[in-house]
Order: sequence, then C-alpha cells, then structure tokens
Amino acid sequence: MSEYFPDVPSIAYAGADSRDPLTFRHYDPDAIIEGQTMRSHLRFAAAFWHTMRNDLSDPFGSGTAIMPWDDGSQSLENAERRIEAFFEFLDKIDIDFYCFHDRDVAPEGSTVSESRANLEHMASVLERHQASSGRKLLWGTACLFSHPRYVHGAGTSCSVDVFAHAAAQVRSAIDVTHRLGGGGYVFWGGREGYSSLINTDMARERQQLARLLEMAVEYKHQIGFKGTFYIEPKPMEPTTHQYDFDVAACLDFLREFGLLDEFMLNIETNHATLASHSMDHELSAAAAAGVLGSIDANMGHEHLGWDTDHFPTDIYLTARIMRIVLAMGGIGDGGLNFDAKRRRGSFEPVDLFHAHIAGMDAFARGLKIAAAIRADRRLDEAIQARYASWDDGLGQDIMNGSCTLERLEAHAASIGEPSMTSGREEMLDAIFNDFIR
Amino acid sequence: MSEYFPDVPSIAYAGADSRDPLTFRHYDPDAIIEGQTMRSHLRFAAAFWHTMRNDLSDPFGSGTAIMPWDDGSQSLENAERRIEAFFEFLDKIDIDFYCFHDRDVAPEGSTVSESRANLEHMASVLERHQASSGRKLLWGTACLFSHPRYVHGAGTSCSVDVFAHAAAQVRSAIDVTHRLGGGGYVFWGGREGYSSLINTDMARERQQLARLLEMAVEYKHQIGFKGTFYIEPKPMEPTTHQYDFDVAACLDFLREFGLLDEFMLNIETNHATLASHSMDHELSAAAAAGVLGSIDANMGHEHLGWDTDHFPTDIYLTARIMRIVLAMGGIGDGGLNFDAKRRRGSFEPVDLFHAHIAGMDAFARGLKIAAAIRADRRLDEAIQARYASWDDGLGQDIMNGSCTLERLEAHAASIGEPSMTSGREEMLDAIFNDFIR
Amino acid sequence: MSEYFPDVPSIAYAGADSRDPLTFRHYDPDAIIEGQTMRSHLRFAAAFWHTMRNDLSDPFGSGTAIMPWDDGSQSLENAERRIEAFFEFLDKIDIDFYCFHDRDVAPEGSTVSESRANLEHMASVLERHQASSGRKLLWGTACLFSHPRYVHGAGTSCSVDVFAHAAAQVRSAIDVTHRLGGGGYVFWGGREGYSSLINTDMARERQQLARLLEMAVEYKHQIGFKGTFYIEPKPMEPTTHQYDFDVAACLDFLREFGLLDEFMLNIETNHATLASHSMDHELSAAAAAGVLGSIDANMGHEHLGWDTDHFPTDIYLTARIMRIVLAMGGIGDGGLNFDAKRRRGSFEPVDLFHAHIAGMDAFARGLKIAAAIRADRRLDEAIQARYASWDDGLGQDIMNGSCTLERLEAHAASIGEPSMTSGREEMLDAIFNDFIR
Amino acid sequence: MSEYFPDVPSIAYAGADSRDPLTFRHYDPDAIIEGQTMRSHLRFAAAFWHTMRNDLSDPFGSGTAIMPWDDGSQSLENAERRIEAFFEFLDKIDIDFYCFHDRDVAPEGSTVSESRANLEHMASVLERHQASSGRKLLWGTACLFSHPRYVHGAGTSCSVDVFAHAAAQVRSAIDVTHRLGGGGYVFWGGREGYSSLINTDMARERQQLARLLEMAVEYKHQIGFKGTFYIEPKPMEPTTHQYDFDVAACLDFLREFGLLDEFMLNIETNHATLASHSMDHELSAAAAAGVLGSIDANMGHEHLGWDTDHFPTDIYLTARIMRIVLAMGGIGDGGLNFDAKRRRGSFEPVDLFHAHIAGMDAFARGLKIAAAIRADRRLDEAIQARYASWDDGLGQDIMNGSCTLERLEAHAASIGEPSMTSGREEMLDAIFNDFIR
Repeated sequence: MSEYFPDVPSIAYAGADSRDPLTFRHYDPDAIIEGQTMRSHLRFAAAFWHTMRNDLSDPFGSGTAIMPWDDGSQSLENAERRIEAFFEFLDKIDIDFYCFHDRDVAPEGSTVSESRANLEHMASVLERHQASSGRKLLWGTACLFSHPRYVHGAGTSCSVDVFAHAAAQVRSAIDVTHRLGGGGYVFWGGREGYSSLINTDMARERQQLARLLEMAVEYKHQIGFKGTFYIEPKPMEPTTHQYDFDVAACLDFLREFGLLDEFMLNIETNHATLASHSMDHELSAAAAAGVLGSIDANMGHEHLGWDTDHFPTDIYLTARIMRIVLAMGGIGDGGLNFDAKRRRGSFEPVDLFHAHIAGMDAFARGLKIAAAIRADRRLDEAIQARYASWDDGLGQDIMNGSCTLERLEAHAASIGEPSMTSGREEMLDAIFNDFIR
Repeated sequence: MSEYFPDVPSIAYAGADSRDPLTFRHYDPDAIIEGQTMRSHLRFAAAFWHTMRNDLSDPFGSGTAIMPWDDGSQSLENAERRIEAFFEFLDKIDIDFYCFHDRDVAPEGSTVSESRANLEHMASVLERHQASSGRKLLWGTACLFSHPRYVHGAGTSCSVDVFAHAAAQVRSAIDVTHRLGGGGYVFWGGREGYSSLINTDMARERQQLARLLEMAVEYKHQIGFKGTFYIEPKPMEPTTHQYDFDVAACLDFLREFGLLDEFMLNIETNHATLASHSMDHELSAAAAAGVLGSIDANMGHEHLGWDTDHFPTDIYLTARIMRIVLAMGGIGDGGLNFDAKRRRGSFEPVDLFHAHIAGMDAFARGLKIAAAIRADRRLDEAIQARYASWDDGLGQDIMNGSCTLERLEAHAASIGEPSMTSGREEMLDAIFNDFIR
Repeated sequence: MSEYFPDVPSIAYAGADSRDPLTFRHYDPDAIIEGQTMRSHLRFAAAFWHTMRNDLSDPFGSGTAIMPWDDGSQSLENAERRIEAFFEFLDKIDIDFYCFHDRDVAPEGSTVSESRANLEHMASVLERHQASSGRKLLWGTACLFSHPRYVHGAGTSCSVDVFAHAAAQVRSAIDVTHRLGGGGYVFWGGREGYSSLINTDMARERQQLARLLEMAVEYKHQIGFKGTFYIEPKPMEPTTHQYDFDVAACLDFLREFGLLDEFMLNIETNHATLASHSMDHELSAAAAAGVLGSIDANMGHEHLGWDTDHFPTDIYLTARIMRIVLAMGGIGDGGLNFDAKRRRGSFEPVDLFHAHIAGMDAFARGLKIAAAIRADRRLDEAIQARYASWDDGLGQDIMNGSCTLERLEAHAASIGEPSMTSGREEMLDAIFNDFIR
Repeated sequence: MSEYFPDVPSIAYAGADSRDPLTFRHYDPDAIIEGQTMRSHLRFAAAFWHTMRNDLSDPFGSGTAIMPWDDGSQSLENAERRIEAFFEFLDKIDIDFYCFHDRDVAPEGSTVSESRANLEHMASVLERHQASSGRKLLWGTACLFSHPRYVHGAGTSCSVDVFAHAAAQVRSAIDVTHRLGGGGYVFWGGREGYSSLINTDMARERQQLARLLEMAVEYKHQIGFKGTFYIEPKPMEPTTHQYDFDVAACLDFLREFGLLDEFMLNIETNHATLASHSMDHELSAAAAAGVLGSIDANMGHEHLGWDTDHFPTDIYLTARIMRIVLAMGGIGDGGLNFDAKRRRGSFEPVDLFHAHIAGMDAFARGLKIAAAIRADRRLDEAIQARYASWDDGLGQDIMNGSCTLERLEAHAASIGEPSMTSGREEMLDAIFNDFIR
C-alpha cells in the first residue's frame, strides 16, 4: 500500500507555544474537559467529498487541487485508491469519523443495479478500512443534486420517474450506511426547492418531499437501522429557495407532516449565515425543540452571498457552539463534521492538513472556553436572574395556564409603572471576552 | 368642522391617459373584474400611524411632515382633530377601511385605567366618524413596542410586571376593536425577539409569548369577538432577531403551541424582503397552509437593510400578489392595508394623496393583469402540465401512501434514465410580461 | 452545412398581441424611435460563452444543456461546428453583434504558440462567418480566470511568470479582436482581487494590474487598434474582493494610474446588484464621468448573493437603462450584450431563443417607454425645476468659485429659515408607472 | 459641582484575571508596546453624541436612557450640565479625547447668529473643562443632517438657501474646533446622497458638495487652522445612496475635484460593513493611498442592514485594525473615536462605563496581539516571500515601465507552464489564531 501524504507526519498535540504548523496547539485528544476526553466531546468527522473529491473548481475556473492518488477515471480501482488515501489522511490527522455521499465513494453506473453494485462494492472496501483503522462512519447520504436528472429536484421533481430514481438511490444509501454501522443518515435537500414560482407548485412539491421521507422512515424501521435521520437546513443555493430554509422551516415541515419524532437536524454554520441567522440562533432553536442532532462545522464569509464553506477558525464561533452543545449534555450520536473546503489557492495536499488543524484547534479552544464559562457560572446566572420574576407567583400562574387578561390588567393597574433593569449586554460581552484566551 | 386638505379634491377615476396626478388612472372602484367590483376585491385600508402620526423623522433627523391639524400636544382635543383629518382623507381618497394601534388614536394615560379611558373615549369618536362616513375598521392592534417599559419585549419581557402591562393593553385594544366592528386584530411582535442571546432565554420567551396569545384567544371567545386574529411575520428590526421571523417561523410557532386554528397571518412585503423571501413566496406558503389572512401593502428597497415601507408601486409585485389572492378566492375579511410611508422629502399634506394614489393604481393594475393571466390560462396550464405524471398511477400511489422504496427502485430500474423536459422559465417570464400593460 | 436548430424558425416581429412565443411582441428592428431604428439604438449582442459554451452546470451539479453540435472534444473541428451553430443562432434571432473570450472560440494549446495558432485559426473561421452573415464583433476579451495558473490572479498574480502568460493571452486576444474589426476589447478582472488579505499585498497587486493595462494601451496604439478599451466593474465572486468593485472604484483606479482617457466602462446589471447599487446608479455615475461605454444586459435575483446572470426581463430596469442611454445620445460603439444564461432547468436548444426573445422584447419596451417619457418631458422638467435656485445669482457664484463661507453665512442670516418644497417622489413614481404599458 | 456618576469609581487596570467588571483587564495606559505607551498608541476618544445625547430611542420606540443630568430642556444651563457630566465621565473612564457635533453641545438658536452665539458660549465652557481636566478635542463637526431644512441634503441640497445655511454652520463649527485646539474636523455626509434618482441630478449634487469642501479648505487656510480635514465613508442610511459610499468612492471624489491633498479619511467599521467591505479592506485601501487619518471605533451586526454602532468587542477586529495602524507607523493626529452606542436595553448610566471598558479592553488586546504578530514576523514574511518573483529582473522591468506585451509573450513561451505555490491561507489563519490569547 502506497503512502499518499509521504511528507506529512502524524499530527500530534504540541502545546500552545508550538511554532510547527503541522502540530495541534490546542487539540489534545485525551485531555479531560468536564469529565470526558476532548476526543469524545468533539467527535470530529472528515467529509469525503471535500477531502477527496473537491478539485477546488468554481463557477469561473477549473480545478486546481493536486490529487496524486486520483487518475481522473471513473474506475473502481481509482475509487479504491481514493479510499486508501482518505484513511491515511484520517489516521495522520487523527479524526475518528467520516461522512460520505454515495457518489463520492462509488461511481454511478449506467443502470440502477450497476450503481447499486458499485456502491456495495465500495462499501466492502470501506468496511475493511474501518475495521483495520478503527475509524467510523458518522453518517451517510445520497447525492440527489449533481446528476442532470435532478435538475428540477429529486423528491420534489415534477417527474414521477425522477422521484423513483431518487428513491432508489436513497434506499441503496441507507442500506450501505446501515451496513457500515453509520450513526446516522442525512437528507440535504440540495435541489428540493425552486428556481422560480412561475413554473412551480410549491404545495405539491412539499407533499412529495414528505412522502419520500415517510417511505425512508418506513424502510429504516423495516431493515432495523437504528441510526438517526437528519434533515439539514439551507435557505438557497443551488436553488432560489430551498424548502428546508432554516431550523424553523424544517421544524414547521416536520410538524406539518407528522415527522417530528423521526428526524433531528444537522446544522451548518454557513447555511445559518445565508439564512441571516447566527449559528447560535439556529443551534439554540434546534436544541430548544430537542432536535439538535449533529453539526456541519464550517463558517462563511460575512460579505459573500454564497456557501463558502470556510474551515471554522473563529474562536468566538466555536466557543458559542460548544457552550450550547455542553449545555444540552453533548452532541450524542452526532458529531462535528468538517463540511469545509480549502480555498482554491490552497491546492497542495498538505493544505488538507493545515485546514483541518486550523478547524480542530479552533474547536478545541472553543470547548475549553465554553467549559470555563460554565465553571465560572456568571453568564448563566445573569440569565437566570433576569427572568427571576417568572419563577413563582403570578409568573408561574401565567405559565401554567391559570391566568387571564383581566387579572393581568388588574395587576398592571395595581403596580403602576414597572421598575426596569438594564440588560447589561455590553458588560456580559466583556465577561465573555475574558474567556477568549 | 374644518377642512384639513382644502386644496385637494376628491380623487376620481379619470382613465389611463389622465395627466392630472390627483386622479386615479387605473383604480375604477366600480369596474367589474371576475364578477366583482375592484373595490370589493382590493379592500384598501389606510394606516392611521403612517397617515396621521408619522412625522417622517428618522434615526438621523427630526420630523419634516407638515401636519396643520396637529398641535403637537397629547390632548384628547388634538387626538380628535387628527381623526377628523383622517376621515376627510379617507373620504377624499375613497378608501373604505383603516387600521390603528391604540396609541395612534388615544394618548397613553398616567395609569392603566386612564389609558383605557382615553382609548374608550377615542373609540366613541371613531364610532361616530365610522357611522357618518361608512368607513370601516379593518383591524386594530396594541402598540407594544414604543413605550420604554417594552425595551426587553412585551409578551417576551423578562419582567412579569411588564407582561401584565402588555396584557392590559391587549385587552383594551381587543375591546375597542370589537366595539368598532373591526374585521380582525393583529399581533405584530415588534420587540418580541432579542438583542443578543448573551442575556436571553429564547425558549422561555417563546413560551411566554404563546401564553399571551392563548389568553387573548380565551378572551376573544369570552367576549364574542368574531374577527380574525393575525400574527405578522418580520425577521428583524427593531430587534436583532424577531420570533415571528417569516411565514415558516410563524407556522412552526402556531403548530408547536396548538394555536394554528386560531390565527391567520398578516403578511407585509417589506418584511418578506428583509427575510430574504419574495412576497410571492411568503403569500404562497401562507395560502398553502390556509392562513393567508390579510396583507400589509408596501414594498422595500432591495439594497437597503431596514424596513423602508415604500408605497407599493411595482406592477410586477402587485400583479403577483393579486394572482395569488384571486387564486385563493379573494382576501376574505382581510384587506390591503397601506403600511407605507412617504419618503422624508415628501412632507406636504398633498403627498399623502400622491402616495396612496400611486399604490392604489398599482394594485388596480395588478388586479387587472392577474385577472387577464387567469383568463388566458396559459401560465396555470403550464404548471399543471408539468406535474402531469403525478396525477395517476404510480404518482397517485406515492401520494396516497401505498408505495415503498423497494417498488420505486424496481420502477427506476425498469425505465432506465427518465426523459426530461425543460422548465421553460424564460418563456413563461416573457408570457407574464405580455400581460404587463 | 447542417442546420443546428431545425425546429426553430427565424424570429419575426408579430405585434404585442401575438401568442406565439417564438415571435417578438415588441422588438421591431426597423421601427423608428427618436429618429433611429430600434436595431441601431439597441445594438444587441449575443455572448458566445453563455450561448455556446455554458452547459448549465453549477457548483452542485453537472451540465444539463443539450448541445447537439458539440461532441465534447477540444478539437478544432468541434470548435468550428460551434461557430456554425452560433451564426445560425444569430441569424435566426436577428442579433447583429457578438462577444467572445479567446478560450470560448479556440481551445487552449499545450504551448503559448499553439494557443495563439488555435486562436488565429478560429479567427479566420469567424471572419468568414462575419463576412457571409454581416454579423459583427462588439468586443473581444481574454479569459484570464479559468485556467488553474490564474488561481492567484492574472495581472495581480504573485508570480511574474503567470503575469507573463496573462500578457501573452491579452496580446493575442487584442490581435484577433483587431483583425475581426471588433468595436472594443474588455478587461474583466475575474480573479484580479483577493481571497484574503492575510496573504495579499493589495497595493502591489493594484500597481501590477495598472502596468498590464498600460502595456495593453501601448500595444493598442502600436498596432493601430481603434476600438475602445473597457474595464468591467464587479465587486466579488469568484474572489472575496475584486479591485474593480464598482464604477467608483474603477474611476478611482483609472484616475490614480492616469488611465482615464484610455478606458471606458462596460457595466453589468447583476454586478451592480452585487455591489448594492441600482443599475441606474452605476450607469448615471459612469455617464456623468463620460465613461459609460457598453452594457452587459442581464439582471440578478435580489435575494441571491451570487451572479445569477438572469436574462433581463424587468421592464422597469430596461426603461431606466434606455432612458439614461438616450439622454447621453446613445450607446455609441458599445451595445447591449446579453451576458445572461438560461436557468439550469431550461436546457433545450429552443430555450436559447425563448430567453433572448424575452430579453430583446424587454429592451424594446424599455426603449419605447424611455422615449415616451422623454417626449412627455414632465420627469425631466421636474428635476430641472427642483434645482432652479442654482441656475443664477448666488447659485452660479458658488458653482463658479467666487463665493466664500463668510458670504454664505451672511446670506443665511439674512434670509432666515429657507422655504422648503416636497421632492414629490411618490407622484413622480406614479407618473413613471403611467409609461409602463 | 455635582457628581453625576456617584456610584462609579475611576476605572483602573486590574489585570486579566480581574472579576470586577468596573476594571480594565487589558488596558494598562502606561504599559509600553513597541516603545510607546498604550495610551499614546490608542488615542481613545468618546463621542459626545452617543454618550450624552443619545437617549436610545429607535424608529420603533422612544428613549430609554436614564440621564439624571439632563432636564430635557434646550437651555444653555442644561447644555452646561451635560458637559460637566461628560468630563466627569472622561475622567473616570480615563479617555483623553472627545468629539462633538455643534448641535450636540449647543442648542440651535432661532437665527443664524443666535446659533453661532450659543455655540461660542458652549465653546468657552468646553475650553474651561479642557483646561482643568487636560482632556482634548480630537475633532469637531457640524450636524448637517438632523434639521428638517436638510431633508434634501446640505451641500447637495436642491436649494441654494439651504446650502448657505450649511455653509454658515460649517464655518462656525470650524471656528470653534480651531479655538478648542481640535486635531481635526470631520465632514460626514449624512444626507449628501439621494432618496431616489427619479428626482435627483447626481452630477450636479456632487459638484455642489465639492464646492462646499473647497470653500471650507480656503477658510481653513485663511484662519490658520492646522488640523486635518476628514471625510467619512458611509454607503447608505439615512439616504438610499450616499456619495461618500466607501473609501474608493471618497478617493475618486477627492481626485476628481483636486482635493486629495487636503483631506484624509475617518473610517468607521460599521460603515465598511454596510458597504460589503471588511474593515481591513477599507483601512488597507486608505493606508495605501496615504489617507488613513482616523478611525470611528465600533462594529456592526453582520445580519443587520443598518448602522448598529455596537461597541467594538471582537478581538479579531481590533487586532486587524491595530496591525494596520502599527504598520503605517501609528494613527498620527487621529484617534480611535468610540462612535458606538449602548444597546437600547442598557439604559443605566453605569452601562456607559461597561460599554467603553468593553471597547477599550478589546483594543488593548488588539494592540498587544498586533505587536506580537509583528515581532514574530512570520505573517509579514509570508507575504513578502509570496511576491519574491517581482523583486528583481523581469518583475522590476514590468513595474518600472520598461516591458512590453511582446516581451512577456516571448517569456511565457520560453518558460512553459509556470510552477505554482499554495497561498496557504488556512495555515496562516491558524498562525493568526495562535496570537489570539
């Protein structure tokens, strides 16, 4: 077996003062935070598509990435070699999990059955690598957006025949995810939306999508797959409007079609950004509804209107994410999947390592900061104190449903103008900054 | 009784070639479209706040509007004079409906009961004007965002006492709306959101808001108010994030708290814009869910990130709105409320007329265009034809729940690659343009 | 010679009531507007790249376009066949001009000289088609953004060797444009910007770019090319920041490096949109500076943050554009180049016709509306009247430089508070609407 | 003299581990960085308008700020009391500089001469406080946007009489700034733009604005004012488009009207944000042109489309700003003016302290981080190394103007495909993060 990254060593923790860029300065996998290892808190995953299949092309230019392991062919041999390179990468970067689309790992065949056969063959290759390396599948998914047949959508296509192809692909991908012991399966609605309402029946398309998900749920139970089903919010791109716009739109959809018990959300920072939300907001909204399942760890550029999938290096961002994750008791069977790509100018293989190190260290710092904020208690207590008037008496009567407008009017009249307290936002921001270190 | 717009005549329909700006060129109230008068299709309303209370100040400067009827005082006499001027305006512009906040028409008192008394006094004035003019109340609402006590929210305030004040105001405003025969009552969550999550318990605040709405529903039924309750989506401004972000967020909220049967939506174009949605999208989403109740007719400037509340003059916009409204069988008890303000430079009283004429004529054209598109049938038929494969056989089996992934995989395998048809978006856009005339 | 669009007739003017989508309803090439034919006012051009080379792939999926004339190879024969198909398209759609990048028409060779030879060969093919069809080259350009070598920029590359390759390409492309009688040559700085300032010396890169343009100017004069050099503003995409951000940034650049006399601007609607400007603004700013040279006629989707290159179908947009163009006495040697692509779902060859018809008819209407507004005079007169106080006396003294702050203070003191007049924006918007018909 | 902040102590440096929110954890004014004190590097200024005049009202609600020193009147006594409170604030927070608009400190009179007299009276009060406290005026300015007469602009008004009032105000404000020893004078074009092009002659308005600036320059030299004149970019708000859109637009304007030698720029983070630029970009662009004069230190919320004027607490932002400032040898006579306001919910007087502490500490950290990055050298060296090919030979020939397209084509042909090097953006981002501590 060749070595594909011969000049890159295994990446090790070397401490905050290390000047060697091929070391972790903060990610110390066995360090203990709140009683668990960093490794088990963070559950990092690498994305097969960005790591192995993204040639860094963009709408204005062809690929720049140097990929010595890839001969550019659609052959199974080439596909196997990519997997070898990928697992070498996972070993050297010390990431435990990975994620893939069916078409990332296996070439599409000329028939449905050939496609299935290709995928199953590659699953056996992945199975072997998993066994020898101990790496695990965080989640699998089907690519229902790249092939021209999905131009008008997959589950939301105007063509029943295209819907059937999508269903076939979903079935195979679930089968393979199940076989590989995947922790979950993601539905990202890449083309489940519209280009324009001038030729679209939105109500119909959303019903179709619900049916596809319902059949997938039935199938999952039938085959005994115990992993989590996720849907992934994104507001736009490639379509003009995607039905899974944001957390609220996904929740509304799941509630409308009675699917809320069967799905959790996989939330991506850059998708939150595109929807004009902060990542905190989306995570908090999902956590409050009990559906925060997994995270696509990247970030966007605030002035750009497309999905830039930057590696997540903003420590404020990672600290806020990990504070929410710790508050809900950890990410469970989900993880932090680097759905992130190097910039087009970072085209050398070693840049894959630099980029993942940048993201992993940023999350390690975020974890440490979040734990310190929690231990300090001041920020949590400030929120509790602010709502103290709701914790008994009239507040509790309101919340438990035993109050009326009349009684409240009488109360308001009796107290006169309420006394008011500052929200102290700037002071709290400054305290938060005290932990950024 | 004085005349407040002495130089402005009653505005009359004068035909498309009129060069007199104080005439309607398209709004011919008694013209028949699809069997009904324009007047009954459009159900225009004027907003008391923008028409009578907006002095055109902005964050960078004081008011410019010339308002000879307003002496600047908080007196009831002044409040009565404003109402006189308003009804003269309604008569001359020939708008049948109006909308108001409690604080628009009645000064806040120094106590809860004084505020209630002021509002009830002004309601009697409004009642008299309604009776003599035949003008009607489209909807009423309470202003829960202007007073400093609502700085941290009203229903979502961290203070129970503030919540009680909000409840008191809501009760009075519902009472008065009921008394005036209002067609509905709107909840716009102006400060029901947050400035920052650093001091906010979002889950708690949303539960509080739900309780306020539940009590309002109970009260409505108790007093026998038959009008519609509306919530109004807006994503941000004044707060950083408002809980009623968009149609999807409102639907999700109503479903979560079991309120979907009790509320419809009042949808505003500029709020849709701020949420990165087209107005078509928001209206279609609400109509599909059966909750499109009323419309705040304005528009925003696409490059500006705040609520500009322009008068709606884009004929594409009005045509698209009216096409959706006609398709659902009309706006029902709702209407088209001009929640729109003149630009700060349009500070003369006559500009109120110019601005409303611009909006009314644009909607009249939108109505005529939409009716012509419907009569032509080509655009509707294009959509029906596109989804024809779903109308029987396999398509129907999928939709009625009697299909599985396995059967679909078999179908996909049997048909090979689906045949594909262009979506013809540009051709349909050109046909749409044929009706813009 | 084969026919490549056998089912598409020559597109003819059939009047506003035509229901045949393969007709012009407004573009009547020989109709006279303000003393000239529509054809000569509009000077439409088709873009070779979008018409012949764009397979409608996007970052999330492979191409969908059906292109029977293209065998997918890099051969010269294939390149010739594309040109045959293109000229058939130009003939049938009756567009007089076209635009191309070097790499659109000729495959890149394995050496600089092979690339030059390929381009010169294809130029002879284009020359022959021009001669037989009467179609003309509006402008040519070099593609300095697609090849991986331009990953860090072309003129702004950190590598002198890459800069040399860019220079070589520019020279060949100018040679060929000159030979084909092109009216101009465009520099669009696709990668002349940065991904991040963390590895960029912006001052240095702007100086490099200025040098490339200076050498191109010297070369142009040396070979006697009389066409116009254009630069084309775009704020971002593919880079994070492009140096030619908007009209103001281009003007500043040209002034700084003494190039203002040698360049005009080619302005694209969607690029204006991305820079948070209206197209009116950009055109007005360029026209005021005397550098409005040519127009890339497309439009963007207001809620999407990337260059969508929609065909221009908004009649407000086309009317505003043509009003500015007529006011400056016509577009001169420039034209209206459809830098626009069909949506991905419009993948049939006939959609090329539908899309261009939609754009051409929209511009024909814009032209008629603009001419009617000009004939009416009310909108122009409103502006003149507004500034009347500047036309003599103190106003003229200020403008000709013979006034001081002291004299103005004395004047202000003497007059007291100035009398103020409404800007009448809504009334003027309504008058504008009267011409949308 | 009363004490206005009786419960707030003088704020002192207490080290990074201090848990007392009314201490500096990083701003140690006498600490030495790169050979100078923090105090002299940072040159903090407080904004009179936000500190003393901003009642935290917004377009949706009235003021919330508690200001015990302000009786709400327009009297000179009240104005004097505000100044007393302000200087107590400056003393306790230990900020050396301040900035003001004429109308912030002195009430507008009923005539031009009364306004001048009021301003001169208040200048004598400020003079006295400056003398006793040692605090200094960073810059002054005139408020040309709040009064209704400026509704259509000040320098760009369609009315000569309004222009004259603006000129009178500018003259008085320059006089007073000169008298108070101000380091500079700022022109922020709050209403120097347009609401709509439908009633605007943009070319004319820009010429008017240039004339106002020219007269101000003449006046400055006449009276011997040695401070710097600044213009301040902002793209929009309150107007739809402001002529001083961004750094590039300001530079273009100054070049066009021959004013580049007389003006520098005062650059505000939130204005950069609104123009879709990073603050780094705007500062780098201004520094490269030699016109980076002073900084309005605040920040915006990335998802909000209006000027939020948050206090600057993002350490990435402050580190990037200070790295640019240090690289150009310091901010000179300019400073860091907190053009920032507390959130509306932070309405207690002590919140003024919390907010400024948050901003000052963030800048102190930014300064320390920037100095550490500079001492480390790796980031600067990475940029130098990247452009090494330009430092001699062909690169120098190109830059000094002794090269041609022909020679470059020959060079490109001779070398074949250039060798390419990764831009290492992610590695550099990770190194930057190593200094965030």
